Order: sequence, then structure tokens, then C-alpha cells
Amino acid sequence: MKVIDFKWPNGFKSGAVHAGFKAGDQLDLSWLVSDTISAAAGVYTKNQFQAAPVQVTKHTINLVHQLKAIIINSGNANSFTGDQGITNAHREAELVGKKLNVDPKLIGVASTGIIGKQLDMTTFTDGLDQLTLSDSIDAPEAIITTDTTSKKVCVETQIDGHPVTVTGFAKGSGMIHPNMGTTLGFIATDAAVDKDTLQQLLSAKIVNSFNQITVDGCMSTNDMVLTMANGAAGNQTITASHPEYAQFVDAFTYVLTSLAKMVAKDGEGSSKFVEVDVHHAANQADANHVARAIVGSNLIKAMLFGEDANWGRVVQALGQTDAQINLTGLAISIAGVQIIKNSQLQPVNMDALRKLLGQDHILIEVDLGSGDFSGVAWGCDLTYKYVEINAAYEE
Amino acid sequence: MKVIDFKWPNGFKSGAVHAGFKAGDQLDLSWLVSDTISAAAGVYTKNQFQAAPVQVTKHTINLVHQLKAIIINSGNANSFTGDQGITNAHREAELVGKKLNVDPKLIGVASTGIIGKQLDMTTFTDGLDQLTLSDSIDAPEAIITTDTTSKKVCVETQIDGHPVTVTGFAKGSGMIHPNMGTTLGFIATDAAVDKDTLQQLLSAKIVNSFNQITVDGCMSTNDMVLTMANGAAGNQTITASHPEYAQFVDAFTYVLTSLAKMVAKDGEGSSKFVEVDVHHAANQADANHVARAIVGSNLIKAMLFGEDANWGRVVQALGQTDAQINLTGLAISIAGVQIIKNSQLQPVNMDALRKLLGQDHILIEVDLGSGDFSGVAWGCDLTYKYVEINAAYEE
Repeated sequence: MKVIDFKWPNGFKSGAVHAGFKAGDQLDLSWLVSDTISAAAGVYTKNQFQAAPVQVTKHTINLVHQLKAIIINSGNANSFTGDQGITNAHREAELVGKKLNVDPKLIGVASTGIIGKQLDMTTFTDGLDQLTLSDSIDAPEAIITTDTTSKKVCVETQIDGHPVTVTGFAKGSGMIHPNMGTTLGFIATDAAVDKDTLQQLLSAKIVNSFNQITVDGCMSTNDMVLTMANGAAGNQTITASHPEYAQFVDAFTYVLTSLAKMVAKDGEGSSKFVEVDVHHAANQADANHVARAIVGSNLIKAMLFGEDANWGRVVQALGQTDAQINLTGLAISIAGVQIIKNSQLQPVNMDALRKLLGQDHILIEVDLGSGDFSGVAWGCDLTYKYVEINAAYEE
Repeated sequence: MKVIDFKWPNGFKSGAVHAGFKAGDQLDLSWLVSDTISAAAGVYTKNQFQAAPVQVTKHTINLVHQLKAIIINSGNANSFTGDQGITNAHREAELVGKKLNVDPKLIGVASTGIIGKQLDMTTFTDGLDQLTLSDSIDAPEAIITTDTTSKKVCVETQIDGHPVTVTGFAKGSGMIHPNMGTTLGFIATDAAVDKDTLQQLLSAKIVNSFNQITVDGCMSTNDMVLTMANGAAGNQTITASHPEYAQFVDAFTYVLTSLAKMVAKDGEGSSKFVEVDVHHAANQADANHVARAIVGSNLIKAMLFGEDANWGRVVQALGQTDAQINLTGLAISIAGVQIIKNSQLQPVNMDALRKLLGQDHILIEVDLGSGDFSGVAWGCDLTYKYVEINAAYEE
């Protein structure tokens, strides 16, 4: 597997335009279209108020796990929009299906932006009219909201001697604006993948990637990660028993994890990227939970912004979980400096440690001394800028 | 029941001195001493890394549910201090017991301040030497850390025709979350109360008071609320079958709830006090959980600091819970203005609402439309000042 310049996998076309959901001339409507009908899978927000496009696309994908295309708008989340919102999401699928001459049940719909405002269908129709099928790689730019950069990654691997491309793009940042949906992710591959295998793989791998990032602990109404596999690479259809299944899993997982880290790194107002590694947990759930608890602690996030080493806050955060902890065998390192070993404070050159905390990538390592499981979580610091962004008036 | 000027109940003496745990000449060591042995009860942090004084005092109280005195230092939490910390906490009880000529098993010990530093026992001994038994009401000042004000309340009621006083004081500020943050609370009464009744009452009433406040989602290692009832008022011993049990419960609950609200109001860096009322929940746990989820949301806290009415963030926060919600019967009001009714956005004068959000006490009301239970939680906004306080270097 190697990382390559961003491009669409074989048999995918795209396009992105300014429809008018966002101000100025910013791109706000894009699509990703496969030449042929693709295997498809999705994972969806667990927020009880799932936005209309999440409800509609989840239903669509669960029918036969196949998609021809995905259409994505930014600037309006079509969330908390009641029956009219559902009708509009269905109408989007119909209009795209008509333009591509396929059943609307093969169209995925995603939205991100303001909550509680009906989607202007004239704006949508006007935008759709302008969309063309091209090699344009503008879609990652067209889906972002308060993100400071687009998030995209592309890898190539070999399956059955055929080059296979796995391409992913995502948006993140925070729940913002009268409430932007946080995370959208899309992964396209030209590998031939069995549709059930694709769903199982996405559902399994989301756990240690997107589910391990936190910017502000807020799960939006619009979160969704979708994947399409169209088979244009010509490999034997991948199932768990395919001899090169592991290669595909590696590529797919790399893309998912890379996107998740990019989203964490670009958390609203962040100045530092934070990774928390938990080792020797009693089980996977403990490892993941403790990593998330630490990366999500306001006190730790503020301390990292301040480039301070208040390790007691790490103790506090992990003690607050119900994870199994060896209370006399705990170890904690911050920025590579071991501070706690066997639950004892070690001699630490605090001035040197503070200098290390000036880096823009901080690693916190915790050893629970309770078992053989490891977990990782990613996040960012808590800054004045986060408060400013989220305190600002928004129309 | 009436609120009266702060004083100790009959048969209690106190004192507060500067021992040297804090800088300058700030008060940092205080005690509360009953003339006679009192019934006693406690509730303790659920953090797995319980600080030494919490472990020792919990053990002490659970022996016979009686105390003669409580000693409290600020400036050092005696937390994450290993065996030496436990030894020191026991030694504190021994020294106080010796000075008062009672069994050290009748002495409660509480600490708050920096984590991971051994308590200087010479400082403690010097301070204890200075402590006297007086009517001084300085103890509430002596236990605070980053609090901007002391928290204290005193009420009087009648039981069996005898005037009964219930006096409470607390500290809070940061690391505050359900199951208590860096929260210490002490309630003394001259009522005669059965010791089991006292423990049951405290355990029950903590649920809707201190466990419903959150400043930053962080539960500290030192949280503890202790209560002593010495019987100096001369009433018949209160049990649940006492004819005036309800009067005592009212007074006790008022003190607990008032202290909890004072702690929330003085959350680190806060500029506004926030109350969330949840109505028509399917059960009490749902009502309490939803109220806490909303009051604890960073996005909502930042929005209130910005005096903005991003109601979608309330939808997001409650949708993130697993509480039972009538998805078509939801109602949300902010600062008395109904924004959502029957899950539909109402016409709202946003300019007028923003003006209301300029107040320093904000009420958010949520109707889940699912049952007959109500819950309340209290917190504060998320400000630049919170980030500043928690980003600052600590020695």
C-alpha cells in the first residue's frame, strides 16, 4: 500500500458547483458518481434527532447495499425539518436519479450546515443542473463548513495483481453555526468488494477511527460515513476469505484513520493535535473509552493549550471512568516523558517538559496495567478561539 | 423554615487559621467541632483515585456513623500520594483527636488543593496548634481555592417545638460534575437525627442537588459532602417516622440545593448561571440525565457566553442522550421564550431573545413529552476566562 496524490478511483466521476446554500461563490454542492452500480455501506449518527438525509440514505443503503451516486450539499443540514425535510431529501434523490437515468433508490444524499431551516429546492435544482461528470477533485472543498482545510487521502494497493485505489474525503470541525453537522466521510474504491463484507468492514473499522475522535463531545444530527466499491479494478470480489483480504483492509483502514485524524487535527479553534494511547487495558472497550475520556477532558485540553503538564488531570479523567485500572501499576507519559510509573510520581524536569509541550502534536500515553488491550483516540486542545467561534452570533 | 444569618448550630464551635498550605496569609486550615459526639454521614467521589482523606474519612464514618469534629485544609489535596498520603490523613485524625481528647475514629479529615504532593505535616501541626474553639464563622473562607466567593447558607426550622438550625458551607469552582467535582460540602445541624436516617437522607438528596451540577464534566478525586447532627436542639430523635420529618427534610434539602447552586454559579471563569429544567420525562434518570447533558454541553455553554440562541445545540445535546423523547412532541424554551413546540420551530423575535440572553441567570426548559418526571441541573457558561484559568501554569 502506498499513499498517492488525490484522485478518484477508476470508474468514478465527480463535480462541484456553487448552488447558493453558502454565501459568495463558495462551492456547496458536489457529487460522486460511479460508472456502474457499486456495492455500498454506511454508518450513521446515533443522535436521536437524525437529520432527514441521514434517515433517507440509511434506509436507501439498507435496501440492497448498492449506490450509483452520492450527492452532498453544505450550508444547510436539512436537520430538524420534519416531514418536509424528509420529502425534500427524497426529492433530491429523485432529481439526481432522473439526471443519471437510474432508480432514486440508488442515490445517497448527505447534507451539512444550518439546523432547522428547510432546504431550498430551487437552489438545489439550479445547482444540480450545473453539475457535470468530470475528473474534478473539488468535492472535498465543496463539503467543508468551518473546516480550515479540506480533508482527503488516497492510497493504492494491489489485489489479485490489479492496482486498486481507495480514496477518502471528509469534513469535520465542530458542531457549529446554528449547529453544523460535524462529520461527513466518503470512501470510494474501484476494488470489487462483496456488499456485506463492505458493510461489516466499515462498521468494524469505524470503531477505532471516527468513533475515537472528539472535538467537543458533541455528536451531530448529520454525521454519516458512506462507502462505495464499484469493481472497476477488475479484482476477484473481496470477501473475508479472499487471500488478499488483509491488504484491502489495511488500505481501507488507513484511509478511515487518516481522515479521522485530519478531522481531529482541524477541530474548531485548535492549536494542537492530541493523541492518547492507552495500553494494557483489560478489554478493548476500556482501552477506547479511557483514550476518549482523556482526549475529551476540558481540563486536559485547556492544560495542553497552556502547554502545562498538570498530570493530575489525567489521573482525574481516567479515575472518573469505570475502566479496570491497576491502582498501583499505573503509568503516564506526556510528550514522551514518563511522569507516573507504578502509580508513583517520577523525578521530572518540568521546564524541559514544558518546552516539549510547545510542539503542535502532543502524545499522552497511559498504561492501565490491567490486560493486553490497546486503544487510541485523537483530539485537540481547548482554546480561546474555540470559545470565540462558538460564542459568536450566527444567522 | 426560614433563611437566617450564617451561624453555627447550637453546640458547634469552629476556627480557621493560616497554617501555610496556601501562599501569603490566606486561611487554609479550619475545623468544625461538636460539643458532643454527633451522628454523622457522608457521600464521596466515585473517582477511582479517591484521595487519602476521602478514603480515610469514608472508612471512619462507616464504622459507627459518628463524628466529634471535621478538620479541613485547602492548598493541598493529599491526592495520588500513595501510602504516605494515607498515613498522613490518619496522622491528622490522631493529632486532632489528641487535641480534643477523643478517639481519632471520631475525626473526619478533608483536603482540597494541588494533586500529587505530600501534605507537609509540620505545617499541619503548626496550624492545628493555633486552632481554637470559637464562634468564628471563617471556615467557609478557609476551604475555598479558586472560588471567587465562599458558599454558605443557614436555615432555621421548628421540630417538636424546638428551634433547629441547619448550617451548610461548601467549596467548588472547577473539576465539577455529577458525583461532585472539586466539591467539598459540610452540613451541621443541632437537630437530633438518627444516624441511619441521616445517611439515607444525605445519600438520597445528593442525587438532585450536588449530583446535578456540572462546570466542566470533571469529577475530582477529593469530592466529599459530610454532615453532622449533634442533638443540641433537644428535639425527639428524627427518623422517617417522626411526625415532623418532612420539616427537617425540607430544611436539609434547601441547604444542600442552595450550596449546589452556589457552586454551579461560581464555576471557574463563569459569567452566567444556567438552570436547565426538564419536564415530562419517562423516568427520573432520564430527567436528570438530560438536564445534565444540556447544562454540560460545551457548545451550549459557549453559546450562552455569546448570548446567542442556537437552539439546535439543545436539540443536538438531548438527541445525543438515550433518554426517551417524543420526537414529535418536543418543546424547548430559552430564557422564557418558547422556540420549539410539538417539535416545530415557532416564530421567535430573535433580537428580543438575544436581549434576554444578556441576563446573568439563564433558564432552559425542555419538555420531552414522554412521561411525568421532572429534573433540574445547574451550571454556567464557557468563557475565555475558563480557558485562561485552566491553561495557566500551576506549581
